[in-house]
Amino acid sequence: MNLEAFVLGCGGMAPLPNRHLTSVLLRREGELFLFDCGEGTQVSLRRLNLRWKKITAIFISHTHADHVTGLPGLLMLSSQVERDDPLYIFGPPKIAEYIEESRRVLDMYINYEIIVKEVTEPGVVYGGEDFYIRAFPLRHTKPCYGYTLEETDRPGEFHPEKAKELQVPMGPLWAKLQAGQAVENSEGTIVQPEDVLGPKRSGRKFTFVTDTLAFPAIANEAKGSDLFICEGMFEQALMESAIEKRHMTAEQAGHLAKMAGAGKLGLIHYSPRYTDYDLKNLLREARAVFPNTVLTKDRMVFPMEYVD
Amino acid sequence: MNLEAFVLGCGGMAPLPNRHLTSVLLRREGELFLFDCGEGTQVSLRRLNLRWKKITAIFISHTHADHVTGLPGLLMLSSQVERDDPLYIFGPPKIAEYIEESRRVLDMYINYEIIVKEVTEPGVVYGGEDFYIRAFPLRHTKPCYGYTLEETDRPGEFHPEKAKELQVPMGPLWAKLQAGQAVENSEGTIVQPEDVLGPKRSGRKFTFVTDTLAFPAIANEAKGSDLFICEGMFEQALMESAIEKRHMTAEQAGHLAKMAGAGKLGLIHYSPRYTDYDLKNLLREARAVFPNTVLTKDRMVFPMEYVD
Repeated sequence: MNLEAFVLGCGGMAPLPNRHLTSVLLRREGELFLFDCGEGTQVSLRRLNLRWKKITAIFISHTHADHVTGLPGLLMLSSQVERDDPLYIFGPPKIAEYIEESRRVLDMYINYEIIVKEVTEPGVVYGGEDFYIRAFPLRHTKPCYGYTLEETDRPGEFHPEKAKELQVPMGPLWAKLQAGQAVENSEGTIVQPEDVLGPKRSGRKFTFVTDTLAFPAIANEAKGSDLFICEGMFEQALMESAIEKRHMTAEQAGHLAKMAGAGKLGLIHYSPRYTDYDLKNLLREARAVFPNTVLTKDRMVFPMEYVD
Repeated sequence: MNLEAFVLGCGGMAPLPNRHLTSVLLRREGELFLFDCGEGTQVSLRRLNLRWKKITAIFISHTHADHVTGLPGLLMLSSQVERDDPLYIFGPPKIAEYIEESRRVLDMYINYEIIVKEVTEPGVVYGGEDFYIRAFPLRHTKPCYGYTLEETDRPGEFHPEKAKELQVPMGPLWAKLQAGQAVENSEGTIVQPEDVLGPKRSGRKFTFVTDTLAFPAIANEAKGSDLFICEGMFEQALMESAIEKRHMTAEQAGHLAKMAGAGKLGLIHYSPRYTDYDLKNLLREARAVFPNTVLTKDRMVFPMEYVD
């Protein structure tokens, strides 16, 4: 099952010619989840040429302009296709008001149902058969949440030799065992999936964190992430200023990634004060702590593979 | 005195990779006026590298998302400079609500005064010593206004030989005459400016019209425009659809430009259905009626010169 993250915008505060505002799209076997939606998000979606008009759910970190002003345009454009399922939007208080007021004041034409759910405490906000999305609080100048998408464990590896040994004939019964169901073998005995499967294998995990002070609970939430997309807004020399503005430095993001045992750290939400050349300093500082760090750029794609 | 129009975005409805949403900046000797502000306007302003954080006044055609969602970002970024003068924003009803709700819901930090004035009838909405900006109603699916910036007549050409003949010595008295003041000559006689100046010379005129049916009053308002920026959203084959959506075709814009006796027509607000290649058809159709038509593109500059 494919799981990929597309960076739609890597910029913080103000869009720059080559940096749309912070937004990441997660595609899981054709299903789309959007994290934040600043001005310009639509343009990146078009450039990537994804089937983006049918996003399943949108997760907003907080209702500051640079994280939400792309929403009205995106919601309207999504009316160009037919959809039966509602679009879910999650975010901290005021997100419902933002959507409602935008719809009312801008007289937005929308031909599908939007269900807005305000997030006020940590917990699972959305889930499918084999994954869930959890929100957890961050520390910014207004209520702000991080999100993880975590897949549940996959069944262990199937061992055909064990199935044969236990008299289960090859065919549909093998498929049932692989799917975790018990079956009756040719001798009338019940064979449990554990009898023919190896240990359960882990799913993948994606974490999205932006606009926050760095604090240890973030690393707990991001624990074991294959991809950890995290604000790296400032260089270390500006840490005091970062704290004052309730943001973090790239090096702090590196520390969190290390504590979380993440697979890869993708920095995002750069201060517009930095040129692309300057960003190399932020990368160097984060890598000194967590070597597998990359600077995200608009339209960069991160495939996430199963580890086992 | 310089007068230039910068196209910040030429697209309608949805931004495309090379077409930000409709927005035009007018610069008159360092003073800036913005007409509409869709998503992405900030990026074009940055690319043009104008001293754009001190816009004097913003004029909004109507409160549909593709004409206003760039405002919150622009208003916040304008807080990065110090300014003493307020920023004026004009637009049809709901513009005040849009600004107020955005400020409140998005907790926007703004360090200067914003004065929003709703436009409900045709008339002069803003003016300086030698120019004025007039709003006039358009016909769209919600209240919508067009705008003209018109300079007042300039004094006629100064004829030094007439001044000498009338015994006015060269020097400060000549300057007074040129500025339209009467002076006393060396013989104690009053010399009127009309005695030494040619006929008054016309100022320049700029007109901005988008999101409307085509109707003759638009041509009256745009009469004599040096530059007429006008919606050319559809090709002629889609005229019925244009009328249904209360938009106009490029050819209709050409007819209005012709009726107005405009100097130049700049088409804008193209439907995203058209590729840049397709737009040549719209240009051809408009030019068949009004030859001096151009397709505007993002960051195109139109200097306006005095005609006499």
